Amino acid sequence: MQRYWSRVTQQLTPYVPGEQPKIDGLVKLNTNENPYGPSPKALEAIRQATGDGLRRYPDPDASAFKAALARHHELALEQVFVGNSSDEVLAHTFVGLLKHDLPLLFPDITYSFYPVYCGLYGIQYQEVPLTHDLSIQVEDYLRPNGGIIFPNPNAPTGRLLSLEQIERVVAGNPDSVVVVDEAYIDFGGQSASTLINHYPNLLVVQTLSKSRALAGLRVGYALGQAHLIEGLERVKSSFNSYPLDSLAIAGATAAIEDTAHFQQTCKAIMQSRERLTLALQGLGFEVIPSAANFVFARKPGHAGADLLAALRERKVIVRHFSHARIADYLRITVGTESECQALVEALKAILSA
Amino acid sequence: MQRYWSRVTQQLTPYVPGEQPKIDGLVKLNTNENPYGPSPKALEAIRQATGDGLRRYPDPDASAFKAALARHHELALEQVFVGNSSDEVLAHTFVGLLKHDLPLLFPDITYSFYPVYCGLYGIQYQEVPLTHDLSIQVEDYLRPNGGIIFPNPNAPTGRLLSLEQIERVVAGNPDSVVVVDEAYIDFGGQSASTLINHYPNLLVVQTLSKSRALAGLRVGYALGQAHLIEGLERVKSSFNSYPLDSLAIAGATAAIEDTAHFQQTCKAIMQSRERLTLALQGLGFEVIPSAANFVFARKPGHAGADLLAALRERKVIVRHFSHARIADYLRITVGTESECQALVEALKAILSA
Repeated sequence: MQRYWSRVTQQLTPYVPGEQPKIDGLVKLNTNENPYGPSPKALEAIRQATGDGLRRYPDPDASAFKAALARHHELALEQVFVGNSSDEVLAHTFVGLLKHDLPLLFPDITYSFYPVYCGLYGIQYQEVPLTHDLSIQVEDYLRPNGGIIFPNPNAPTGRLLSLEQIERVVAGNPDSVVVVDEAYIDFGGQSASTLINHYPNLLVVQTLSKSRALAGLRVGYALGQAHLIEGLERVKSSFNSYPLDSLAIAGATAAIEDTAHFQQTCKAIMQSRERLTLALQGLGFEVIPSAANFVFARKPGHAGADLLAALRERKVIVRHFSHARIADYLRITVGTESECQALVEALKAILSA
Repeated sequence: MQRYWSRVTQQLTPYVPGEQPKIDGLVKLNTNENPYGPSPKALEAIRQATGDGLRRYPDPDASAFKAALARHHELALEQVFVGNSSDEVLAHTFVGLLKHDLPLLFPDITYSFYPVYCGLYGIQYQEVPLTHDLSIQVEDYLRPNGGIIFPNPNAPTGRLLSLEQIERVVAGNPDSVVVVDEAYIDFGGQSASTLINHYPNLLVVQTLSKSRALAGLRVGYALGQAHLIEGLERVKSSFNSYPLDSLAIAGATAAIEDTAHFQQTCKAIMQSRERLTLALQGLGFEVIPSAANFVFARKPGHAGADLLAALRERKVIVRHFSHARIADYLRITVGTESECQALVEALKAILSA
């Protein structure tokens, strides 16, 4: 019955997200969720919006949310694009700005959704190998291309590029769009959003799922000069006129405005990350320096898949990727102090068994 | 700076939704919103879900909501697909099931998003003219095609096809997918969902925006045999793993389960529609028989655009389409009794001026 599917559907290799099991007592460190809750002000804004008004369509432009983002990033309103998660924003970006005759470039080890989007939209791409220590090398991106995309910090390695390195990629590719996917930028990196007014080819993508603790609300956005945003708006308005529901608009606006909660929780996560890194190193793990809310680590002599399974038996779940270059590694979300400790204790027990 | 846009983006003609003005005292009858609020149980379920749990990703399968839909429509779980509005569900349907070598067929007068999706995904299509009285004629759809889509009742005419007529289209096209877009089916029509187990090529699309009064929550769904749903799941998982946020899942599940509120509000709207139709006919309007929550009407000798503008001056907004065949018509949402009366009074004043 696949005969009813379009050719592109038959050829797709869909993305597989980290699991969302509903098991009591689980220590869930597999999908980089924030261990602290969202801003109480965001929750209150959602409650205020929960009423008869839901019979109305939302503001198709989500103007209130865009205005909050413009203020937060010190950009103009027409330099902001919003969507139902940064995954949706990325999807529109792939078809809207990254589909050209020359191949799109992205790292061989990176967010594994990128090649999936290419499959959906028929985009040619080349994977650029990370160096031996899993770093992005700027020089590798200074060659003919139809676009460039990478996360900063990169996923799942957690490695950060400096703003100067980002600028070299952007300045070195004036004819193609460079997308910096900053899902994890708030945990120690410097956003490239400050470069936007200098470069017509730079698009920065962010999400409220990690540093704003609103994975359940599905809100993401892109920042760039007005002509790039206009391109994205054209795609959005050819797909779904109202991607953000009224509750998401209300909650996301309040979340962006609550700077105190944001800074405090990001700081706590960065502190836990440093402690977790030391604890893992104490157990003999090699931990890649991380600027994200996760660490990427391996224990020489132990296969990642085996550790994953052993942790799961102890009700701790983390993430593992089968790509050969990183098959030894585990990606471990930075949880609360007690979650991190539970993970470390479980690893101790596994390694001493 | 359009040089950064992909070719498809440069060529797009995006959809333009009905406006959402924020003007006090406006009688807003332009976007077919439900004049009654959503189920109080849906609002309560949203409030219950508004908490720290929003830091977690939603269930990517929205299993609770799918289960409620399966029960409501007496179908299996794997016969249900859900998305962030029926617009998103339709978009995935276009690229997933309607993109083939032969052209897609849809009426010349219909939901104006259909040709926009075709532009986004590069789908060939043929518009099939409605008859002189703006009816869909079944025989016109019994010819070679790569897929068929139409709303039932049709938009913006409101005209309904019987279940028997739908079945003739579906049975007559065993090699292509027939999509029945039932955004307005709950206001007097018979859903084709009862045919699903008999036809492997039938997909039914519904929304919670109209009869469930949740336009602000952005929830839609599709029903069909498992192989069609699997095709849609492949596209969804190549676009956005979690299209429905946790609040939408909670509210939509409760809304589907609240049958009493649903039936009562639909009945009230149908009664108002009949009264509004009579009142308009009393003013000399020709009103197409409607099975939707709107009426499509014209007053001989008066241009639709002129009436639209005159109504707007009196703070009543309705919708008008510039397509030549229907340029005389106004599409008027069935509001509350007092909203309908305000519209009729405004028209009386305009016509006697």
